[in-house]
Amino acid sequence: MNNFTVFGMRMMSERERNGSHIAEELAQATSPNNGRIYKKGEIIYQPGDADDRVYYIKQGKIKLAYLDESGRKLTLAILGDGEIFGEMVLVGERRREHLAQVLQDAVLLPIEREKFLDLIARKPWLALEIIALFGKRARDIEKKLEDLVFKDIPTRLSRQLLRLIHEHGEETQEGIQIGFKITHKELADLIGSARENTTSALNRLAREGILDKKRYRIIIKDEGKLKEKSGTS
Amino acid sequence: MNNFTVFGMRMMSERERNGSHIAEELAQATSPNNGRIYKKGEIIYQPGDADDRVYYIKQGKIKLAYLDESGRKLTLAILGDGEIFGEMVLVGERRREHLAQVLQDAVLLPIEREKFLDLIARKPWLALEIIALFGKRARDIEKKLEDLVFKDIPTRLSRQLLRLIHEHGEETQEGIQIGFKITHKELADLIGSARENTTSALNRLAREGILDKKRYRIIIKDEGKLKEKSGTS
Repeated sequence: MNNFTVFGMRMMSERERNGSHIAEELAQATSPNNGRIYKKGEIIYQPGDADDRVYYIKQGKIKLAYLDESGRKLTLAILGDGEIFGEMVLVGERRREHLAQVLQDAVLLPIEREKFLDLIARKPWLALEIIALFGKRARDIEKKLEDLVFKDIPTRLSRQLLRLIHEHGEETQEGIQIGFKITHKELADLIGSARENTTSALNRLAREGILDKKRYRIIIKDEGKLKEKSGTS
Repeated sequence: MNNFTVFGMRMMSERERNGSHIAEELAQATSPNNGRIYKKGEIIYQPGDADDRVYYIKQGKIKLAYLDESGRKLTLAILGDGEIFGEMVLVGERRREHLAQVLQDAVLLPIEREKFLDLIARKPWLALEIIALFGKRARDIEKKLEDLVFKDIPTRLSRQLLRLIHEHGEETQEGIQIGFKITHKELADLIGSARENTTSALNRLAREGILDKKRYRIIIKDEGKLKEKSGTS
Protein backbone atom coordinates (compact mmCIF):
# COMPACT_ATOMS: atom_id res chain seq x y z
CA MET A 1 0.00 0.00 0.00
CA ASN A 2 1.28 3.44 -0.83
CA ASN A 3 -0.04 6.52 0.94
CA PHE A 4 2.06 8.73 -1.19
CA THR A 5 0.23 8.70 -4.47
CA VAL A 6 -2.84 10.41 -3.07
CA PHE A 7 -1.70 13.85 -4.08
CA GLY A 8 -1.68 12.76 -7.67
CA MET A 9 0.76 13.50 -10.41
CA ARG A 10 1.90 16.90 -9.30
CA MET A 11 3.54 15.63 -6.16
CA MET A 12 4.78 12.49 -7.85
CA SER A 13 6.73 14.46 -10.41
CA GLU A 14 8.06 16.79 -7.75
CA ARG A 15 9.26 13.76 -5.83
CA GLU A 16 10.84 12.38 -8.97
CA ARG A 17 12.61 15.69 -9.53
CA ASN A 18 13.90 15.42 -5.98
CA GLY A 19 15.00 11.94 -6.88
CA SER A 20 14.04 10.74 -3.46
CA HIS A 21 11.49 8.78 -1.57
CA ILE A 22 10.30 9.10 2.02
CA ALA A 23 12.17 5.97 3.13
CA GLU A 24 15.47 7.06 1.62
CA GLU A 25 14.96 10.57 2.92
CA LEU A 26 14.46 9.30 6.45
CA ALA A 27 17.26 6.78 6.16
CA GLN A 28 19.60 9.60 5.14
CA ALA A 29 18.45 11.71 8.07
CA THR A 30 19.52 8.98 10.47
CA SER A 31 22.97 7.53 10.67
CA PRO A 32 23.14 4.34 8.60
CA ASN A 33 23.81 2.10 11.60
CA ASN A 34 20.89 3.58 13.46
CA GLY A 35 18.37 1.02 12.21
CA ARG A 36 17.86 -1.33 15.13
CA ILE A 37 16.25 -4.76 15.29
CA TYR A 38 13.37 -5.07 17.75
CA LYS A 39 12.14 -8.52 18.77
CA LYS A 40 8.51 -9.64 19.02
CA GLY A 41 6.95 -8.50 22.31
CA GLU A 42 9.56 -5.80 22.91
CA ILE A 43 8.18 -2.51 24.20
CA ILE A 44 9.39 0.52 22.23
CA TYR A 45 7.73 3.00 24.55
CA GLN A 46 4.91 3.04 27.03
CA PRO A 47 2.57 5.66 28.50
CA GLY A 48 4.53 8.25 30.48
CA ASP A 49 7.88 7.69 28.74
CA ALA A 50 9.83 10.76 27.69
CA ASP A 51 10.87 10.16 24.09
CA ASP A 52 11.16 12.77 21.35
CA ARG A 53 11.63 10.49 18.37
CA VAL A 54 9.52 9.56 15.39
CA TYR A 55 9.93 5.96 14.22
CA TYR A 56 10.03 4.76 10.65
CA ILE A 57 9.20 1.06 10.22
CA LYS A 58 11.70 -0.32 7.74
CA GLN A 59 10.31 -3.79 8.32
CA GLY A 60 8.00 -5.61 10.75
CA LYS A 61 4.70 -5.06 12.54
CA ILE A 62 4.09 -2.62 15.39
CA LYS A 63 1.05 -2.37 17.65
CA LEU A 64 -0.05 0.98 19.09
CA ALA A 65 -2.41 0.77 22.03
CA TYR A 66 -4.05 2.81 24.72
CA LEU A 67 -3.72 1.40 28.24
CA ASP A 68 -6.02 2.56 30.97
CA GLU A 69 -4.93 2.76 34.63
CA SER A 70 -6.37 -0.67 35.41
CA GLY A 71 -4.43 -2.28 32.57
CA ARG A 72 -7.29 -2.59 30.09
CA LYS A 73 -6.08 -2.18 26.55
CA LEU A 74 -7.48 -0.73 23.35
CA THR A 75 -5.38 -1.31 20.25
CA LEU A 76 -5.51 1.76 18.03
CA ALA A 77 -3.49 0.54 15.08
CA ILE A 78 -1.28 -2.20 13.72
CA LEU A 79 1.37 -0.74 11.43
CA GLY A 80 3.69 -2.36 8.91
CA ASP A 81 6.55 -1.71 6.49
CA GLY A 82 7.01 1.89 5.41
CA GLU A 83 4.77 3.39 8.06
CA ILE A 84 5.60 5.97 10.70
CA PHE A 85 4.61 6.15 14.36
CA GLY A 86 5.37 8.28 17.40
CA GLU A 87 4.55 11.29 15.24
CA MET A 88 2.68 12.96 18.11
CA VAL A 89 6.02 14.47 19.22
CA LEU A 90 5.66 16.64 16.10
CA VAL A 91 2.59 18.24 17.61
CA GLY A 92 3.93 18.90 21.07
CA GLU A 93 3.55 15.59 22.91
CA ARG A 94 6.25 15.51 25.60
CA ARG A 95 5.44 12.17 27.18
CA ARG A 96 4.06 9.13 25.42
CA GLU A 97 0.37 8.53 25.83
CA HIS A 98 0.36 5.14 24.14
CA LEU A 99 2.05 1.80 24.22
CA ALA A 100 4.13 0.86 21.18
CA GLN A 101 5.02 -2.82 21.09
CA VAL A 102 6.53 -5.17 18.52
CA LEU A 103 4.00 -7.62 17.08
CA GLN A 104 6.44 -9.15 14.60
CA ASP A 105 10.24 -8.73 14.59
CA ALA A 106 10.99 -5.26 13.25
CA VAL A 107 13.73 -2.96 12.00
CA LEU A 108 13.02 0.62 13.06
CA LEU A 109 14.70 3.91 12.20
CA PRO A 110 14.23 6.41 15.04
CA ILE A 111 14.53 10.09 14.05
CA GLU A 112 14.75 12.96 16.53
CA ARG A 113 11.89 15.45 16.48
CA GLU A 114 14.13 18.41 15.55
CA LYS A 115 15.73 16.52 12.69
CA PHE A 116 12.32 15.53 11.42
CA LEU A 117 10.98 19.09 11.56
CA ASP A 118 14.09 20.40 9.77
CA LEU A 119 13.54 17.83 7.07
CA ILE A 120 9.90 18.81 6.65
CA ALA A 121 10.78 22.50 6.51
CA ARG A 122 13.23 21.80 3.66
CA LYS A 123 11.08 19.33 1.71
CA PRO A 124 7.47 20.36 1.21
CA TRP A 125 6.58 17.08 -0.51
CA LEU A 126 7.61 15.26 2.65
CA ALA A 127 5.25 17.50 4.63
CA LEU A 128 2.42 16.53 2.30
CA GLU A 129 3.20 12.87 2.82
CA ILE A 130 3.13 13.38 6.57
CA ILE A 131 -0.21 15.16 6.23
CA ALA A 132 -1.50 12.20 4.22
CA LEU A 133 -0.27 9.90 6.95
CA PHE A 134 -2.00 11.87 9.71
CA GLY A 135 -5.12 12.05 7.59
CA LYS A 136 -5.20 8.31 7.10
CA ARG A 137 -4.54 7.72 10.81
CA ALA A 138 -7.38 10.09 11.75
CA ARG A 139 -9.75 8.40 9.31
CA ASP A 140 -8.88 4.92 10.63
CA ILE A 141 -9.58 5.99 14.20
CA GLU A 142 -12.87 7.58 13.13
CA LYS A 143 -13.96 4.34 11.48
CA LYS A 144 -13.19 2.48 14.69
CA LEU A 145 -15.21 5.01 16.66
CA GLU A 146 -18.19 4.69 14.32
CA ASP A 147 -18.01 0.90 14.57
CA LEU A 148 -17.97 1.05 18.37
CA VAL A 149 -21.03 3.25 18.54
CA PHE A 150 -23.13 1.69 15.81
CA LYS A 151 -22.07 -1.95 15.29
CA ASP A 152 -22.39 -5.12 17.38
CA ILE A 153 -19.40 -7.35 18.17
CA PRO A 154 -19.78 -9.87 15.28
CA THR A 155 -20.03 -6.98 12.78
CA ARG A 156 -17.05 -5.17 14.34
CA LEU A 157 -15.01 -8.35 14.19
CA SER A 158 -15.88 -8.90 10.51
CA ARG A 159 -14.91 -5.31 9.65
CA GLN A 160 -11.67 -5.61 11.60
CA LEU A 161 -10.74 -8.85 9.85
CA LEU A 162 -11.38 -7.22 6.47
CA ARG A 163 -9.08 -4.32 7.39
CA LEU A 164 -6.40 -6.73 8.58
CA ILE A 165 -6.37 -8.72 5.33
CA HIS A 166 -6.55 -5.49 3.34
CA GLU A 167 -3.51 -4.01 5.10
CA HIS A 168 -1.57 -7.08 6.17
CA GLY A 169 -2.96 -9.89 4.00
CA GLU A 170 -0.87 -12.59 2.36
CA GLU A 171 -2.24 -14.83 -0.38
CA THR A 172 -2.14 -18.56 0.37
CA GLN A 173 -3.68 -21.56 -1.35
CA GLU A 174 -6.50 -21.71 1.22
CA GLY A 175 -7.28 -17.98 1.16
CA ILE A 176 -5.91 -14.68 2.44
CA GLN A 177 -3.93 -15.02 5.64
CA ILE A 178 -3.38 -12.20 8.14
CA GLY A 179 0.36 -11.65 7.82
CA PHE A 180 1.28 -12.11 11.47
CA LYS A 181 0.30 -14.22 14.46
CA ILE A 182 -2.60 -12.79 16.42
CA THR A 183 -4.39 -14.02 19.56
CA HIS A 184 -8.10 -13.74 20.31
CA LYS A 185 -7.22 -11.28 23.06
CA GLU A 186 -5.35 -9.09 20.58
CA LEU A 187 -8.34 -9.15 18.24
CA ALA A 188 -10.62 -8.29 21.18
CA ASP A 189 -8.38 -5.30 22.01
CA LEU A 190 -8.71 -4.13 18.41
CA ILE A 191 -12.52 -4.10 18.45
CA GLY A 192 -13.05 -2.92 22.05
CA SER A 193 -14.67 -6.16 23.20
CA ALA A 194 -14.09 -8.87 25.81
CA ARG A 195 -11.92 -11.84 24.82
CA GLU A 196 -14.75 -14.34 25.39
CA ASN A 197 -17.17 -12.59 23.01
CA THR A 198 -14.49 -12.32 20.38
CA THR A 199 -13.74 -16.03 20.59
CA SER A 200 -17.46 -16.89 20.19
CA ALA A 201 -17.76 -14.64 17.17
CA LEU A 202 -14.58 -16.12 15.66
CA ASN A 203 -15.86 -19.67 16.24
CA ARG A 204 -19.11 -18.80 14.51
CA LEU A 205 -17.24 -17.49 11.46
CA ALA A 206 -15.12 -20.67 11.44
CA ARG A 207 -18.23 -22.91 11.63
CA GLU A 208 -19.72 -21.03 8.67
CA GLY A 209 -16.60 -21.76 6.63
CA ILE A 210 -15.65 -18.09 6.37
CA LEU A 211 -12.29 -18.47 8.12
CA ASP A 212 -9.83 -21.00 9.40
CA LYS A 213 -7.75 -20.48 12.53
CA LYS A 214 -4.90 -22.51 13.89
CA ARG A 215 -1.84 -21.70 15.98
CA TYR A 216 -2.51 -17.94 16.11
CA ARG A 217 -2.89 -17.81 12.34
CA ILE A 218 -6.14 -16.66 10.74
CA ILE A 219 -6.98 -17.37 7.09
CA ILE A 220 -10.00 -15.79 5.45
CA LYS A 221 -11.42 -18.40 3.10
CA ASP A 222 -14.49 -16.52 1.91
CA GLU A 223 -13.95 -12.78 1.68
CA GLY A 224 -17.32 -12.25 -0.03
CA LYS A 225 -19.24 -13.80 2.86
CA LEU A 226 -17.14 -11.84 5.35
CA LYS A 227 -18.10 -8.63 3.54
CA GLU A 228 -21.76 -9.62 3.83
CA LYS A 229 -21.30 -10.07 7.59
CA SER A 230 -19.62 -6.70 7.83
CA GLY A 231 -22.46 -4.96 6.01
CA THR A 232 -20.14 -3.67 3.28
CA SER A 233 -20.83 -6.12 0.46
CA MET B 1 -6.43 28.67 21.87
CA ASN B 2 -3.54 28.56 19.46
CA ASN B 3 -2.44 25.33 17.79
CA PHE B 4 0.37 27.09 16.08
CA THR B 5 2.86 27.56 18.86
CA VAL B 6 3.52 23.86 19.30
CA PHE B 7 6.58 23.83 17.10
CA GLY B 8 8.27 26.31 19.37
CA MET B 9 10.41 29.27 18.56
CA ARG B 10 11.99 28.05 15.37
CA MET B 11 8.74 27.96 13.49
CA MET B 12 7.50 31.10 15.17
CA SER B 13 10.43 33.14 13.95
CA GLU B 14 10.15 31.67 10.47
CA ARG B 15 6.53 32.70 10.44
CA GLU B 16 7.50 36.17 11.63
CA ARG B 17 10.04 36.40 8.82
CA ASN B 18 7.27 35.49 6.44
CA GLY B 19 5.27 38.21 8.12
CA SER B 20 2.18 36.11 7.84
CA HIS B 21 -0.26 34.03 9.77
CA ILE B 22 -2.33 31.07 8.71
CA ALA B 23 -5.56 33.10 8.64
CA GLU B 24 -4.08 35.87 6.47
CA GLU B 25 -2.41 33.32 4.24
CA LEU B 26 -5.68 31.55 3.63
CA ALA B 27 -7.60 34.78 3.26
CA GLN B 28 -5.11 35.86 0.58
CA ALA B 29 -5.48 32.54 -1.21
CA THR B 30 -9.21 33.10 -1.56
CA SER B 31 -10.77 36.08 -3.23
CA PRO B 32 -11.68 38.68 -0.60
CA ASN B 33 -15.42 38.41 -1.26
CA ASN B 34 -15.31 34.67 -0.96
CA GLY B 35 -16.06 34.66 2.78
CA ARG B 36 -19.69 33.64 3.02
CA ILE B 37 -22.10 33.82 5.93
CA TYR B 38 -23.69 30.51 6.91
CA LYS B 39 -26.76 30.50 9.16
CA LYS B 40 -27.35 28.20 12.15
CA GLY B 41 -28.61 24.79 11.00
CA GLU B 42 -27.35 25.23 7.45
CA ILE B 43 -25.68 22.14 5.98
CA ILE B 44 -22.30 22.85 4.42
CA TYR B 45 -21.91 19.34 3.07
CA GLN B 46 -23.27 15.90 3.80
CA PRO B 47 -22.12 12.31 3.24
CA GLY B 48 -21.80 11.55 -0.47
CA ASP B 49 -21.38 15.16 -1.61
CA ALA B 50 -18.65 15.88 -4.14
CA ASP B 51 -16.73 18.88 -2.81
CA ASP B 52 -13.01 19.52 -3.13
CA ARG B 53 -12.68 22.46 -0.78
CA VAL B 54 -11.09 22.97 2.60
CA TYR B 55 -12.93 25.42 4.86
CA TYR B 56 -11.39 27.96 7.16
CA ILE B 57 -13.68 29.14 9.98
CA LYS B 58 -13.26 32.88 10.20
CA GLN B 59 -16.00 33.01 12.80
CA GLY B 60 -18.73 30.76 14.22
CA LYS B 61 -19.20 27.15 15.30
CA ILE B 62 -19.33 24.13 13.02
CA LYS B 63 -20.36 20.58 13.90
CA LEU B 64 -18.80 17.59 12.13
CA ALA B 65 -20.71 14.35 12.44
CA TYR B 66 -20.90 10.83 11.15
CA LEU B 67 -24.36 9.72 10.03
CA ASP B 68 -25.16 6.05 9.63
CA GLU B 69 -27.61 4.75 7.04
CA SER B 70 -30.47 4.69 9.53
CA GLY B 71 -29.90 8.33 10.47
CA ARG B 72 -28.13 7.77 13.77
CA LYS B 73 -25.54 10.43 14.42
CA LEU B 74 -22.16 10.59 16.12
CA THR B 75 -20.68 14.06 16.49
CA LEU B 76 -16.94 13.92 15.94
CA ALA B 77 -16.02 17.52 16.65
CA ILE B 78 -17.29 21.01 17.28
CA LEU B 79 -14.95 23.56 15.76
CA GLY B 80 -14.66 27.30 16.26
CA ASP B 81 -12.85 30.44 15.09
CA GLY B 82 -9.55 29.89 13.30
CA GLU B 83 -10.05 26.15 12.76
CA ILE B 84 -10.06 24.21 9.50
CA PHE B 85 -12.31 21.40 8.32
CA GLY B 86 -12.95 19.40 5.18
CA GLU B 87 -9.21 18.73 5.11
CA MET B 88 -9.77 15.10 4.09
CA VAL B 89 -9.79 16.28 0.46
CA LEU B 90 -6.05 16.84 1.00
CA VAL B 91 -5.60 13.12 1.48
CA GLY B 92 -7.63 11.91 -1.45
CA GLU B 93 -11.24 11.98 -0.23
CA ARG B 94 -13.42 12.47 -3.33
CA ARG B 95 -16.83 12.40 -1.67
CA ARG B 96 -17.67 13.65 1.78
CA GLU B 97 -17.98 11.01 4.45
CA HIS B 98 -19.29 13.35 7.14
CA LEU B 99 -21.94 15.92 7.78
CA ALA B 100 -20.76 19.51 8.33
CA GLN B 101 -23.45 21.72 9.79
CA VAL B 102 -23.56 25.21 11.27
CA LEU B 103 -24.07 25.19 15.04
CA GLN B 104 -23.74 28.95 15.40
CA ASP B 105 -23.83 31.52 12.56
CA ALA B 106 -20.50 31.38 10.79
CA VAL B 107 -18.28 33.08 8.24
CA LEU B 108 -16.33 30.50 6.25
CA LEU B 109 -13.56 30.82 3.69
CA PRO B 110 -13.63 27.87 1.26
CA ILE B 111 -10.33 27.09 -0.49
CA GLU B 112 -9.97 24.68 -3.40
CA ARG B 113 -7.84 21.61 -2.80
CA GLU B 114 -5.31 22.49 -5.52
CA LYS B 115 -4.88 26.02 -4.21
CA PHE B 116 -4.36 24.69 -0.73
CA LEU B 117 -1.75 22.13 -1.85
CA ASP B 118 0.09 24.81 -3.84
CA LEU B 119 0.13 26.99 -0.77
CA ILE B 120 1.53 24.19 1.39
CA ALA B 121 4.19 23.35 -1.19
CA ARG B 122 5.38 26.98 -1.13
CA LYS B 123 5.15 27.54 2.64
CA PRO B 124 6.62 24.80 4.79
CA TRP B 125 5.54 26.47 8.02
CA LEU B 126 1.95 26.22 6.82
CA ALA B 127 2.47 22.50 6.25
CA LEU B 128 3.66 22.15 9.83
CA GLU B 129 0.57 23.95 11.07
CA ILE B 130 -1.61 21.61 9.05
CA ILE B 131 0.27 18.66 10.53
CA ALA B 132 -0.38 20.09 14.01
CA LEU B 133 -4.03 20.41 13.12
CA PHE B 134 -4.30 16.82 11.91
CA GLY B 135 -2.41 15.67 14.96
CA LYS B 136 -4.76 17.45 17.31
CA ARG B 137 -7.79 16.12 15.41
CA ALA B 138 -6.42 12.56 15.60
CA ARG B 139 -5.74 12.90 19.32
CA ASP B 140 -9.25 14.27 20.02
CA ILE B 141 -10.83 11.35 18.20
CA GLU B 142 -8.61 8.88 20.07
CA LYS B 143 -9.72 10.35 23.40
CA LYS B 144 -13.33 9.94 22.36
CA LEU B 145 -12.63 6.33 21.40
CA GLU B 146 -10.96 5.59 24.74
CA ASP B 147 -13.89 7.16 26.59
CA LEU B 148 -16.38 5.04 24.65
CA VAL B 149 -14.58 1.82 25.46
CA PHE B 150 -13.63 2.45 29.06
CA LYS B 151 -16.02 5.02 30.57
CA ASP B 152 -19.69 4.96 31.55
CA ILE B 153 -22.16 7.60 30.37
CA PRO B 154 -21.98 9.97 33.39
CA THR B 155 -18.16 9.97 33.16
CA ARG B 156 -18.22 10.51 29.40
CA LEU B 157 -20.64 13.39 29.83
CA SER B 158 -18.42 15.02 32.48
CA ARG B 159 -15.36 14.70 30.26
CA GLN B 160 -17.23 16.09 27.26
CA LEU B 161 -18.48 19.09 29.26
CA LEU B 162 -14.93 19.81 30.42
CA ARG B 163 -13.72 19.76 26.80
CA LEU B 164 -16.55 22.04 25.73
CA ILE B 165 -15.77 24.69 28.35
CA HIS B 166 -12.06 24.31 27.64
CA GLU B 167 -12.51 24.91 23.91
CA HIS B 168 -15.67 27.00 23.76
CA GLY B 169 -16.08 28.38 27.28
CA GLU B 170 -17.15 31.93 28.14
CA GLU B 171 -16.75 33.38 31.62
CA THR B 172 -19.98 34.57 33.26
CA GLN B 173 -20.80 35.66 36.79
CA GLU B 174 -22.36 32.27 37.57
CA GLY B 175 -19.56 30.18 36.07
CA ILE B 176 -18.18 29.10 32.69
CA GLN B 177 -20.81 28.90 29.99
CA ILE B 178 -20.53 26.75 26.87
CA GLY B 179 -20.33 29.40 24.14
CA PHE B 180 -23.24 28.22 22.03
CA LYS B 181 -26.71 26.74 22.46
CA ILE B 182 -26.69 22.97 22.73
CA THR B 183 -29.53 20.45 23.11
CA HIS B 184 -29.44 17.23 25.14
CA LYS B 185 -29.64 15.32 21.85
CA GLU B 186 -26.54 17.15 20.58
CA LEU B 187 -24.69 16.31 23.78
CA ALA B 188 -25.82 12.68 23.44
CA ASP B 189 -24.46 12.59 19.87
CA LEU B 190 -21.12 13.87 21.18
CA ILE B 191 -20.74 11.06 23.74
CA GLY B 192 -22.27 8.22 21.73
CA SER B 193 -25.22 7.75 24.08
CA ALA B 194 -29.03 7.84 23.93
CA ARG B 195 -30.73 11.19 24.55
CA GLU B 196 -32.64 9.87 27.58
CA ASN B 197 -29.50 8.70 29.40
CA THR B 198 -27.79 11.99 28.69
CA THR B 199 -30.71 13.96 30.12
CA SER B 200 -30.67 11.85 33.32
CA ALA B 201 -26.93 12.36 33.72
CA LEU B 202 -27.31 16.11 33.11
CA ASN B 203 -30.14 16.34 35.65
CA ARG B 204 -27.98 14.58 38.22
CA LEU B 205 -25.16 17.08 37.68
CA ALA B 206 -27.68 19.94 38.00
CA ARG B 207 -29.09 18.52 41.26
CA GLU B 208 -25.57 18.30 42.67
CA GLY B 209 -25.04 21.99 41.89
CA ILE B 210 -22.30 21.31 39.36
CA LEU B 211 -24.11 22.92 36.44
CA ASP B 212 -27.09 25.03 35.51
CA LYS B 213 -29.06 24.56 32.31
CA LYS B 214 -31.76 26.74 30.84
CA ARG B 215 -32.90 27.45 27.29
CA TYR B 216 -30.22 25.33 25.62
CA ARG B 217 -27.53 27.11 27.63
CA ILE B 218 -25.24 25.17 29.98
CA ILE B 219 -23.19 26.87 32.68
CA ILE B 220 -20.61 24.94 34.66
CA LYS B 221 -20.74 26.30 38.20
CA ASP B 222 -18.25 23.96 39.82
CA GLU B 223 -15.45 22.91 37.51
CA GLY B 224 -13.53 21.23 40.35
CA LYS B 225 -16.42 18.89 41.14
CA LEU B 226 -16.93 18.20 37.43
CA LYS B 227 -13.26 17.18 37.19
CA GLU B 228 -13.80 14.78 40.10
CA LYS B 229 -16.74 13.22 38.24
CA SER B 230 -14.63 12.89 35.10
CA GLY B 231 -11.83 11.12 36.94
CA THR B 232 -9.26 13.75 35.94
CA SER B 233 -9.03 15.83 39.11
